[in-house]
Order: sequence, then structure tokens, then C-alpha cells
Amino acid sequence: MVIMAASTSSLTFQPILERIAEEIERTPGRGRPADYIPALAACDPRRFGMAVAELDGTVYGVGDWREPFSTQSITKVFTLALDLAREGDELWEHVGREPSGNPFNSLIQLEYENGIPRNPFINAGALVVTDRLQTRTGDAAGELLAFLRAESGNTALDFDKDVAASETASGDRNAALAHFMASYGNIDNPVPALLDQYFRQCSVQASCADLALATSFLARHGVRADGTRLLTRSQAKQINAVMLTCGTYDAAGDFAYRVGLPGKSGVGGGIIAVVPGRCTLCVWSPGLDERGNSVAGVAALDRFTTLTGLSVF
Amino acid sequence: MVIMAASTSSLTFQPILERIAEEIERTPGRGRPADYIPALAACDPRRFGMAVAELDGTVYGVGDWREPFSTQSITKVFTLALDLAREGDELWEHVGREPSGNPFNSLIQLEYENGIPRNPFINAGALVVTDRLQTRTGDAAGELLAFLRAESGNTALDFDKDVAASETASGDRNAALAHFMASYGNIDNPVPALLDQYFRQCSVQASCADLALATSFLARHGVRADGTRLLTRSQAKQINAVMLTCGTYDAAGDFAYRVGLPGKSGVGGGIIAVVPGRCTLCVWSPGLDERGNSVAGVAALDRFTTLTGLSVF
Amino acid sequence: MVIMAASTSSLTFQPILERIAEEIERTPGRGRPADYIPALAACDPRRFGMAVAELDGTVYGVGDWREPFSTQSITKVFTLALDLAREGDELWEHVGREPSGNPFNSLIQLEYENGIPRNPFINAGALVVTDRLQTRTGDAAGELLAFLRAESGNTALDFDKDVAASETASGDRNAALAHFMASYGNIDNPVPALLDQYFRQCSVQASCADLALATSFLARHGVRADGTRLLTRSQAKQINAVMLTCGTYDAAGDFAYRVGLPGKSGVGGGIIAVVPGRCTLCVWSPGLDERGNSVAGVAALDRFTTLTGLSVF
Amino acid sequence: MVIMAASTSSLTFQPILERIAEEIERTPGRGRPADYIPALAACDPRRFGMAVAELDGTVYGVGDWREPFSTQSITKVFTLALDLAREGDELWEHVGREPSGNPFNSLIQLEYENGIPRNPFINAGALVVTDRLQTRTGDAAGELLAFLRAESGNTALDFDKDVAASETASGDRNAALAHFMASYGNIDNPVPALLDQYFRQCSVQASCADLALATSFLARHGVRADGTRLLTRSQAKQINAVMLTCGTYDAAGDFAYRVGLPGKSGVGGGIIAVVPGRCTLCVWSPGLDERGNSVAGVAALDRFTTLTGLSVF
Repeated sequence: MVIMAASTSSLTFQPILERIAEEIERTPGRGRPADYIPALAACDPRRFGMAVAELDGTVYGVGDWREPFSTQSITKVFTLALDLAREGDELWEHVGREPSGNPFNSLIQLEYENGIPRNPFINAGALVVTDRLQTRTGDAAGELLAFLRAESGNTALDFDKDVAASETASGDRNAALAHFMASYGNIDNPVPALLDQYFRQCSVQASCADLALATSFLARHGVRADGTRLLTRSQAKQINAVMLTCGTYDAAGDFAYRVGLPGKSGVGGGIIAVVPGRCTLCVWSPGLDERGNSVAGVAALDRFTTLTGLSVF
Repeated sequence: MVIMAASTSSLTFQPILERIAEEIERTPGRGRPADYIPALAACDPRRFGMAVAELDGTVYGVGDWREPFSTQSITKVFTLALDLAREGDELWEHVGREPSGNPFNSLIQLEYENGIPRNPFINAGALVVTDRLQTRTGDAAGELLAFLRAESGNTALDFDKDVAASETASGDRNAALAHFMASYGNIDNPVPALLDQYFRQCSVQASCADLALATSFLARHGVRADGTRLLTRSQAKQINAVMLTCGTYDAAGDFAYRVGLPGKSGVGGGIIAVVPGRCTLCVWSPGLDERGNSVAGVAALDRFTTLTGLSVF
Repeated sequence: MVIMAASTSSLTFQPILERIAEEIERTPGRGRPADYIPALAACDPRRFGMAVAELDGTVYGVGDWREPFSTQSITKVFTLALDLAREGDELWEHVGREPSGNPFNSLIQLEYENGIPRNPFINAGALVVTDRLQTRTGDAAGELLAFLRAESGNTALDFDKDVAASETASGDRNAALAHFMASYGNIDNPVPALLDQYFRQCSVQASCADLALATSFLARHGVRADGTRLLTRSQAKQINAVMLTCGTYDAAGDFAYRVGLPGKSGVGGGIIAVVPGRCTLCVWSPGLDERGNSVAGVAALDRFTTLTGLSVF
Repeated sequence: MVIMAASTSSLTFQPILERIAEEIERTPGRGRPADYIPALAACDPRRFGMAVAELDGTVYGVGDWREPFSTQSITKVFTLALDLAREGDELWEHVGREPSGNPFNSLIQLEYENGIPRNPFINAGALVVTDRLQTRTGDAAGELLAFLRAESGNTALDFDKDVAASETASGDRNAALAHFMASYGNIDNPVPALLDQYFRQCSVQASCADLALATSFLARHGVRADGTRLLTRSQAKQINAVMLTCGTYDAAGDFAYRVGLPGKSGVGGGIIAVVPGRCTLCVWSPGLDERGNSVAGVAALDRFTTLTGLSVF
């Protein structure tokens, strides 16, 4: 794996990243950081980093691309892949793969659909995936961490205990979702143990470079950094499809319309995206729009696909 | 424009289509035709046709690929393109571009979102698009027909008056949607006139060959058959994105997961799909699954992307 | 029938009404008149009238108690009685008798419950009742007018053509409800004809005195002013029950809690109420609260039951 | 307090109760006992008991009127009274007093209304009331038990530990409700402690005689058995109003229509009812209809108000 230093690279993506960073720099308005836990609220919304990883592990970056940030919901993609690799299609009997409509529907849909969440990227669905990975491995969060370290080559990558503790302290809504699904028999583990695993996953700190590399298996149609296969080609395609239709909260349609790539955002301000067969991206800027996606992050990805023509559409 | 006869073609797509047709032929279970109007209920669910159009107008086909069928909601794509070409982004202030969640939400979402439908492919959204095209042209259905004839090169392509009359006779639900949106000021034309335009559009009869050709402007990034530009590259990408996230009723996630192409289905049993920059497809088989998509049609497209690797993911 | 002039009466209810009127007079804040049609928007929110009718037809009144106002939804009670008298319990297969929860649910409930509205006092339910009375009589609005004239003894009581025309002009939402129920087969008459009947009923102009007298059959357990029986004792009890649980829009619980009487309000600012076996009341003041009930009207009825102890609880 | 033996009474209500019991005995079809916990599922649906308590404590009864049964949601009335007596109107800022519409709405309404449940008799509302009583007393369940013993004169009345344990074991849905409201700041106590209090209240075993006597304070306008006042006259009226509009799950409208009395049912098959100023009733038969109310219980109360004319309407 070759990590290219931003300043010395003469390859394709570097000038594009630098041009995007300049444009973002000149753009006023960055949204507001998430404020439900102190660690996120303290972030400066003007921070900005972006990285592109080629299939061979070459990484280009700009701005704060090596600064670790709170990955939050981005890790839902990796947990999904790790569980899908283990149990295959049976997973889809416990979680759907349809967009959820607007946020206001989350609970009514769970009720209407008998405790089966709509997709693995809404909180209810991610709780189910974590629950199933936990049953199969005994340590869902540990599996996630090992995978992220291996794919990124960054062995220092870790959970943030303060963030996990803050999530737990404000975790009543996720507890409600888990108990509600448990009432339908769709949760196997005790709710407190499940929440502990879930909040640790959300607390992973990683940089744009780390996450672009860790996402590469989806651009390589299921093949890991070491050449072994995690997912079948078909499963990798499936995860990309779920990312495109469900990966950016209630703005999946808008993200597809503007960016046109499979992507997954987190309230820490990060977004990962996949150009199947070509490269992966990760962008970070903590200011969010009202739907929970990074304002500068979406704008940067929009520019990237416009400048390179690398949209899937 | 060169139409290749199925039996004589030696080019790339023909053997793939023939293999798919054989597999579909051997597959039991085709779903049931739509039964809310007599013309659809009378269709034989074992009919099957499929066509692929290359960017230059070459068409490959198999089975009933030249048999006209009731296009129904497939025409929503063309009406959207015709209106978007005229009014541009202002359209998006009157209709969203997010998936709608499940069917049960259609009315509650309209109410919750003050009469702005979620996307142009649910009935409420298509009524808004038709209303706006009607205001701009005075004959929305006529514009649609002219466009379809020009792109397909089939001047015999026409409305089916019996189907339009049947739709009107069972049109109370669409009338309810239109009046409801009118109560929010989101419909300009008188409801009966709007419904007349809308039901005529749904009644267009066309074949797989016709529709594959008529869809080609989306694979050509906005350029029509005669080389003139209907949409900007960006607008063509946007329509593809909306098709992927919203094109197959409440199964958009599943369609993306299985097929991985922008597509739009109709309850007549047709589905169109786009491989941006490469080709377009249309498949027809009248038997529907419980979500209103052609059973054999989805299966055939699934096979196509698996065999060719031409998914966007 | 003896109509007592307010100024000369020495009987029981008169001093109570006068005391209430004084208190209301001193109370600031009257809410705002309905503004969706000009005739209602023009009303002075400080107008106030109140009447009590004893079972023998003696009427006491205060303030604007003889001033005709727009009855609006109050007439739903009479239409219900006229239809129930004709078809009996079969009506309840087409409309429920449960409170509707909040307004936001109206359409979703119609959808969830297959076009059967929750109760006869929400608009959807009143449309069904009018539709059925229309089928049985050929002139639902005419039947209503004849009944109101007979019970009140006021032969000048009539529709207001301007109000009916205004309602029609802003009638898209009711048209949506009617078409939606028609799509479930729960409407027999053509929607435009039904709406004409419905809006004429809403347009009846009547005074507090008129309406208190017209409501008396419910306090007399089903017996009309002329001594003939319109409803069985059981049916009269049923209508009172439906008024108590469903009569004041989404504030039925609050109205029961504060006033404790079966009642029905209209957006014209009127409210009728029943003390079974004892008397009936009608109060009018055009300023509405955010749930569509007359602010001074509810306050006056609250005072009445507190001062007299004539609540049902 | 004088308890009349059923066989020797010659007073007013006794022959009516005996007639009702005979009619119920001859009526086939009793519904099915609740089956979510073993203790309820084991009940014989043909058990039937009914008691009437006059204001002076005289009790009439028939059938299994002295047999203790699982009170379940009936105790929500007493917990409400105990908390309302302590905190007064402030309670209503934390729980509404409107009917909830149908069951399917429970969670969506909580979400739509920011964690404020619609009324104190749905589970979410009862959890809030218990939470508040717990905060004020430190032992909500103990307060309830002391009150029921004092009013019924039955010092043996107690919780059923097995029932409470069963409720806890199947308590995920109530845990979900409590955590969900906690996420809006509408729950003060830790959720596990709250649930313990709540499930103990549901587990109280009491007979028809016990409950008819314990309910008498609502017929006496707020005065307890020992002559002290628990509630103001106005508060007693308020609780009666909430019982009438919200006391029988999603059948409040139907119960008002058929019975016409304030009432509260439990899934143990019991129902209490109030004739304000006159008497109280309790009926028990474990077979439930699909909305959770005792089939024979509702039928018996319907007969009672028809035979005696003691409906509030």
C-alpha cells in the first residue's frame, strides 16, 4: 500500500482535490455541528478534509485528510458488510433494504412492519445488524475495529471512550427502538449489552485517509486490502445499492441527484463514497445541514463528480 | 436508425437476450396482471418481450419485443423530462425527489409536507408534473405523444382511448390526490382537465423496441435521436438518479439491490432501464408482484446485469 | 311553544345566562373568526349570544341570541339524526363512532380503515351521512331545512347562497375526501352533486334560539316538538354519546373535561349542547381557538355547568 | 359499610343484577382471555361476576362478584386520582386528555406530540402518571395498594407477584414507551424502577365488590369512604370525563354509545363504571373482544343502563 503525500503527488486526483478545497474554502456557510453530545458540539465547522483512494491503495488527500474525527453512522457500512459476509441473505429477513421515507416515519414503520426496520442504515436497522453480528462473534465492536485497522493499515485507530459514554447517556431513543424491536422478537441480545456494542461502534475515531482505504473493498467488488475476498461480487453490489438508496438519512434522493454515488454519512461530518471499480472517497467537515449531512462534504462530492464525470449515472 | 431483426443479429446483446428469454421461459410463476381495469386484466401473464437499444439506435430484441402494450407509469419519465427541459429547477419547488417509503404513506406524506409530493414518479408527483407541463404547453399529452413518436421513429404510436376511459372511470383516487394538492395551491389546472391529460398519458401503447429507443436520450446524457439536446448532462443525470431511487414504486431499494440500474416500471408490466453512456433496455411481461412490478421483467433485468456486468454499482 | 323575552323573564335560567354574559363581557381574548371564506372572516369576534331551551319549548336568551349566524358543522347533528331515523343501524357499517385522534390523522385513518370514516362529525363522516340521506330522500339539504324550520318554529330559516358558493370555491379538500371514499365504494352519489348538498347544509343561517329549540329532540330522548318520535330512546342516547366523544373536533376530551355535556361546534362560532332530560343550549361567538371551537362559547358552557351543576358527570 | 349478601337482598339493584346474570348465562360467545401472560391465559372465559355499590357503601352482587381477579389497567384510574390530588393541573402539562384514535397511532402520536401521551389511560400516559406519583411519594404502588384497601375495606387485597414478574418478562413494549418519553424529558425516574412500579400496579388482585367500593369516590364527587375529600368536585368530574372519552382502549366511542357511562376496562376482564351521584359498578368476565374489553362485561353494563335508565345521556 502506497500513501501519497498530498504535496508531492503529480497524479490525476490531486489537482482536483486541491481545486475543490479552494472552492469550498471560498464558500460561506457550513451548517452546524451535531450538538446532542459535547464531543461533537465542540467541533469547528470550518474544518475540511478530503481523501481519494485508488484500488491499489494509493491515497490522495487535501486539508484535514489525516485528522481523526468521529465516524458515527459511517461504521454502519462496515458492520453490515461483516455480518452479511457471515450470514448471507438470511440477514434480509430481519432488516429491509428500502428507503425509509422521512424521519417522522421511523417508529410508525417499525410498528406497521412488525419490528422489521426498513434498511440497515437507519438506527433501528443498524441495531439489528449489530445484534446479529454480536450473536455470531461475541464482540461486534471488536470485529469492526479489527477490520478498520486492517483495511486502513492504521493500527492506532480506536474507539473514543468519552464519545461512547456520551452516546449512552443520551441513548433513550435507541433504547426505545431496541426494546420495541425486541417486543417483536427481532433482537437476540439483552438491550443494555446491545447498546454498549452499538455505541462503541459509533465512537470510532478515524481520518479521511483511513476511511477511504477501509471502504476500498466496495470499489474492489468485495476484495479486501490483502487480496482475500470478504464479500461476493453480488454482495458488494448490493451494499453499494443500499448506500445509494438509503445512505444519507432522508436525503438519499437528493444525494443521488447531486452526487450520483453510493455514499454513507455520519453526524460527525464525515461521508464515504464509492466509484465502483475505480476509487473510493472520504470527506469530512463537521457542519451539518438540517438532515444531518455535512454541508461542505456534500458540496465537495458534488464538485468531484461534476469535475471528473465519475458519477454512476 | 437501424433496427436489427432478432433472428439475424450476430452482435453482442442478442445472444444474451436469447439466453435470458430461455431462462425466463423455464421459470414458473409470473405474478398476476393488474386487474383494476379490464384492458390490463385481460393480458396473458406469460407474454414476454425484451429489447436493448444502443446509443446509435441499433435495437436488439427477443420474444414479444415489437408487441405494443400499455405503458402506464413508464410515461412519467418522459413527461418529467419534457417539463424539466422547459422550466428547469423551479419544478423541484413543487415536487420532491426523495423515495416515498411505503404506499401507506402517500396521503399522510402529502398532508405532512403541505401538498408537495415526494417525487415525480408517485401518482401525486406525476399529477403535478403533468399539471405544470399542461400549463406550459396547453397539451401535455400531445407533447408526450409527439416526443415518443419522434424518438422511437414509430409514427403509429398512439393513445388507447378505451384504456383512458377505463382509467377515468376508476379514477377516484387520483381525483382525490389532485383535489388534495389543489387545496394546498399546488395544482394550477381544473382537476377534471388535468385528469384527462393524465389518463391519456397513461394510456399510451408502445412496444419494448419503441420504449428502449425513446429512453435513449437518458443514456446519451440528454441528447435526442436527432442529435439535438433535450436536457443538460446534469439534468439527464438527475432523472437517472430519481429513477434509481424512486422508479419502481415501493421496491426501489430492492430493484437497486437486484438490478442496479435506473429504471421505471408500469402496471402494464413494462420496465425501462438505463445504462448511462452505453444502452437502454425495455422489458415487458404483464404478471406483477405484490408491489406492482413485472415479475419476469425484474428477473430478466437482474439476469442482464449479472451476465453483462452492466450495473452502475 | 313560548319564547320568553330575555328582559322580562324571571325564570330559572335567565339570571344565570345574564351572569355568564357579564363574565364573558369582561374576559379579554376571543380568538379569531374562521378565515377560509369571506362571510366568516368578516364576523366580529366580540359578538356573543346564548340561549337555553327547556323541554316544553320555553327559551331563555342573552346577548345576540336571536341573531342568525352560519351554523356550519352544527348541522351534522341533524343530518345524522335524519338519516339514522331512516336507515337505523345499517348506517354504522359505513361510518364509525370513535373519536378520530388528532386532525393530522384524518386521511391516514381513512386509508388505514378502507374508506370508513371514524365518526359522523368529522368531514369525511358527514359526507357519508349526507350521501346516504341524499340517496334515501333525493334532497338531503331540503330535508334538513324542513326539519330545522319545524323544530325551531322559524319558517324564515334558510340557506345562505353566498356562503354555499364560497364553500364550493374552497372545497378541494372535501372533494378529495369524497373521491377518496368513493374509491373504496363508500359514496353512492356523484361527487359534485354530493358536495352541492353538503355545502348547502353547512350554509344554513340560524340563531341561538333556533338551534337550542331544534336540538330539543335530543334532550327529549328522541321526541320532536310536535310530540311525534323521530328517534328511539336508544338512538337519541347514541347521538348524545357520539356528540360527547366526537362533537368538538380534536378537543372532545377537553370539552368533556371542562363542560361535561354532549355538544357540537361549528366554525361559524356556534356550539349546541344537551342536558339529557332537562334542556338544550346554544351559544355563539365567532372567535375560535386553534382547534376550531368558539373561545367564548366553550367558556360560557363551562360556566353554565359549573353554576348549575348540570354536567352529565 | 354494609355488604349485602346476594341471596338475601331485597333491594333495588339485586333483581336487576340477577336478571342480567341470567341473560349473560344464556348468551353464547365470550371472547378469549388475554394470552400474553400465563396467569391471564389460564382464566375461564365463562366466569362472570358483577357488583353495584351505592354511595353509602351498600354493595349488591351476583355470580363471581367476590372472586379476586387481575385488575390490570383498571388501576390506572386510581393512580390518576392519587396523583391529581397531589399535583393538580400541572399533571396535564405532561399528559393530555384526548382520545387516542386507534392503537396503531400510539407511537406516532407520541412522536408527533413530542413525548406527551394523549391521555392517562393509554399505557404511555399511565407510565407518566406513575412516574409522577413515584416522584411525589417514593412508592407509587404502595400508595395505590393502601388506597384500594382503605376504600374497599379489604385489607387482604394485594399484588400478585407472579403476574408482576410475567409482565416484566414481556415488558419490552412498555420499556420502549418509557425510554421514548424519557428521550423527550417526560420521565423523571430510571426506566427499570418505573417499570417495576408500573407492573406491580397492574398486578393487583381485587374482586368486583372491592373495585365497586374503591370507585365510589368518583360517584361521590371526590369524597372517600371515610368522608374525607380526595378530589375537588371539579377534579372528580374531570376523571369521569376522561374515563368516558378514553377509558375503554379504542372502543371508547362504542362504549359511550352502548353503555353511556364513564368506565375503565382491564385486560384481566374487569370493567368499572360510574353513575355520578348515584352508584358505581364493577363487572368481570375474562373473555375479551378484539379491542381488549370484556365481551360479557360490556354486554352486562349495556343491559344495566337499558334496564335502569341510569346512563348519563
